[in-house]
Amino acid sequence: MSTNSPNPRVVVIGAGFGGLAVAKALGGAPVQVTVLDRENHHLFQPLLYQVATAGLSPANIAQPVRSILRRYSNVEVLMADVTGFDLEKKLVLAGGRSVPFDYLVVATGARHSYFGHPEWEQFAPGLKTLEDALDIRRRLLLAFEKAEAETDPVERERLLTFVIVGAGPTGVEMAGAISEIARETMLRDFRRIDPREAQVILLDAAERVLPVFDADLSRKAESQLHHLNVTVKLGVSVQDINADGVRTNEGFIHARTVVWAAGNAASPLVKALPGTFDRAGRIQISETLNLPDAPHIYVIGDTAHCPGKDHKPLPGVSPVALQQGAHVAENILAQIEGRALKKFAYWDRGSMATIGRHRAVADVHFAKFSGLMAWLAWVFIHLIFLMNFRSRVSVFLTWVWSYFTRAQGARLITGKK
Amino acid sequence: MSTNSPNPRVVVIGAGFGGLAVAKALGGAPVQVTVLDRENHHLFQPLLYQVATAGLSPANIAQPVRSILRRYSNVEVLMADVTGFDLEKKLVLAGGRSVPFDYLVVATGARHSYFGHPEWEQFAPGLKTLEDALDIRRRLLLAFEKAEAETDPVERERLLTFVIVGAGPTGVEMAGAISEIARETMLRDFRRIDPREAQVILLDAAERVLPVFDADLSRKAESQLHHLNVTVKLGVSVQDINADGVRTNEGFIHARTVVWAAGNAASPLVKALPGTFDRAGRIQISETLNLPDAPHIYVIGDTAHCPGKDHKPLPGVSPVALQQGAHVAENILAQIEGRALKKFAYWDRGSMATIGRHRAVADVHFAKFSGLMAWLAWVFIHLIFLMNFRSRVSVFLTWVWSYFTRAQGARLITGKK
Repeated sequence: MSTNSPNPRVVVIGAGFGGLAVAKALGGAPVQVTVLDRENHHLFQPLLYQVATAGLSPANIAQPVRSILRRYSNVEVLMADVTGFDLEKKLVLAGGRSVPFDYLVVATGARHSYFGHPEWEQFAPGLKTLEDALDIRRRLLLAFEKAEAETDPVERERLLTFVIVGAGPTGVEMAGAISEIARETMLRDFRRIDPREAQVILLDAAERVLPVFDADLSRKAESQLHHLNVTVKLGVSVQDINADGVRTNEGFIHARTVVWAAGNAASPLVKALPGTFDRAGRIQISETLNLPDAPHIYVIGDTAHCPGKDHKPLPGVSPVALQQGAHVAENILAQIEGRALKKFAYWDRGSMATIGRHRAVADVHFAKFSGLMAWLAWVFIHLIFLMNFRSRVSVFLTWVWSYFTRAQGARLITGKK
Repeated sequence: MSTNSPNPRVVVIGAGFGGLAVAKALGGAPVQVTVLDRENHHLFQPLLYQVATAGLSPANIAQPVRSILRRYSNVEVLMADVTGFDLEKKLVLAGGRSVPFDYLVVATGARHSYFGHPEWEQFAPGLKTLEDALDIRRRLLLAFEKAEAETDPVERERLLTFVIVGAGPTGVEMAGAISEIARETMLRDFRRIDPREAQVILLDAAERVLPVFDADLSRKAESQLHHLNVTVKLGVSVQDINADGVRTNEGFIHARTVVWAAGNAASPLVKALPGTFDRAGRIQISETLNLPDAPHIYVIGDTAHCPGKDHKPLPGVSPVALQQGAHVAENILAQIEGRALKKFAYWDRGSMATIGRHRAVADVHFAKFSGLMAWLAWVFIHLIFLMNFRSRVSVFLTWVWSYFTRAQGARLITGKK
């Protein structure tokens, strides 16, 4: 071939934290990058629960993928739903189209998993996409509207009972936010119901909330939740979910609104790749982040089972995906230039979760803290990482405004009722 | 009856500009007010086109009806879809519920009308609700995404052709905004298409744009549209709309995206009231804003045919509804106290329409102006009238940001694709 041979083609599937990190790190490099995503926007998922609980608008936490990547002239973006691969011919199949690649990065994330009960989803939606968040917002707000119009006290109580299944960060954040909406935001909005009668119940089969945190912080988070009038039920397993509520090993909880914040499963697309899979559907990757049987294929983020310390897989959080993305870009360039691949090592800077309007817990290794200080740290970190300046200013003002007025500005019911 | 007899019940249907004006003016008065709306939010409709063209988020221009009215303890809000009346028993029927009234105010607004062709709606959606706006936004943004992925140049051209039917204020504002998105906002976002190739065509059967304005301002608006590369076709009547485009008396225009900004029809609920109706389905009301045959029933806003100067009906704009709402509240209190009803007189403070990012036309009677000055006046007036402080600040910052960066922050495709 002549020296004018075209640059190697890198196809990245998924414009989440991982996929974008790959594309940005390859911006300006001698490769042609194509980013495929079924949505037109990147989502700042850590704040998605604030859209679901009417604190923020979708545009505050999402941004068109094209805008984020527009400055990199060797990167193109295609909005497309990837349906499979032709791995022999090195093609990604997306509807009627096929996109050729030399190197492939799969960063398609995870959906919630209902532990073999997909029929629960209609009664207990999970929170992964903007549509999910708007659906949950609609259900939450409609429950209060219906309770206001309801004359039967039993049905009214069921309408005002909110069950969150799963006491990880998303479940804890949702429970705190719902309780605060009921007890503060909506306080004077209704004439027939007292929104403070709302019961928020947080369930988990584990013995403590936020199990990825230190046990001491779990206890603090639990006491902060009690303070917000959230009923925390631990060691409780869900046996069934239907239109009337949740059946657990401890009895039936009548509730018209149930939110699912429990298991995750890797996006099913990864099943079409060669390898071994864990129980959560994640594909086992090598220490260089590619597939042992297909070294030109990389899998990162929530889709990958990546061994960490003590051989436990790395958690499905954005810092893992971000660091893996940058690392994959380096390894792809090394492969192209015939250099050796580097092993990935995750630098864990800690975890934090917010609980209501001014409480949080944070574990940053050198220190563990909770309460207002942790909350301020959480606000700071989230604003720093919000992607563009306008979102940062507008989210900050929205927060300041709702902090002082206790108003949630985005209390809009849209879509099907 | 004792002096403890309950206060008269006023039921207001619709929480648009008119209905809210009634409820606010009756706040604190010796009446019980119930506001019914099928949505939970009031919409600042004059800015709806900015949600459709991805400049603003739904929460910027909408606010929960409960929040707006929370301070009036004699006003309650019910989210309910009114299906009819029992006028004998003085009941409003809303699903399974019936709401009794002594005085009724119908302020249910208008939907777009397709001149007897309801089948056109699926191909050419109109712009009245937040759902409409998000649907049009989705269609606009998807057209560019599909064009980027399209290899057939003929289909690509059809995807990049946008037809707006109706050159009233909404049509003119939509056309200007779409053209600017294509020519400025999206300029560097695509690799395969040049968004400047997009064609925006504004059609109207009338002989000038903005027919409610002075002829001189119509000409100025038309030249501002030309400046923004909008093709204005006047004296053109639509004969059919289908998935391929629009058939007119001058030939077929191939376009994958068509927006309807032409006729309006009063909400059909009003048909259940006694009276005479005009061609737009509006009920004829008396000069005191109630029905000649049912003086305890008032109809206002876009639902009413209210004679103005020269016996022409008042236009369907927010100042008419606002002034009528305040007037209705006065007349209801007069009826209760046995005083004579006052005739309504509309105080027309003029009209304005914006054309793109920094152009507008304004007719305020004592002066007619166009260009940047008119645009600044438009910005000022719209910010003043935006309902709450947070929206005002956040809309202002969004505008300032997108003015200087030419970015549209809300370019999110949500919902079904």
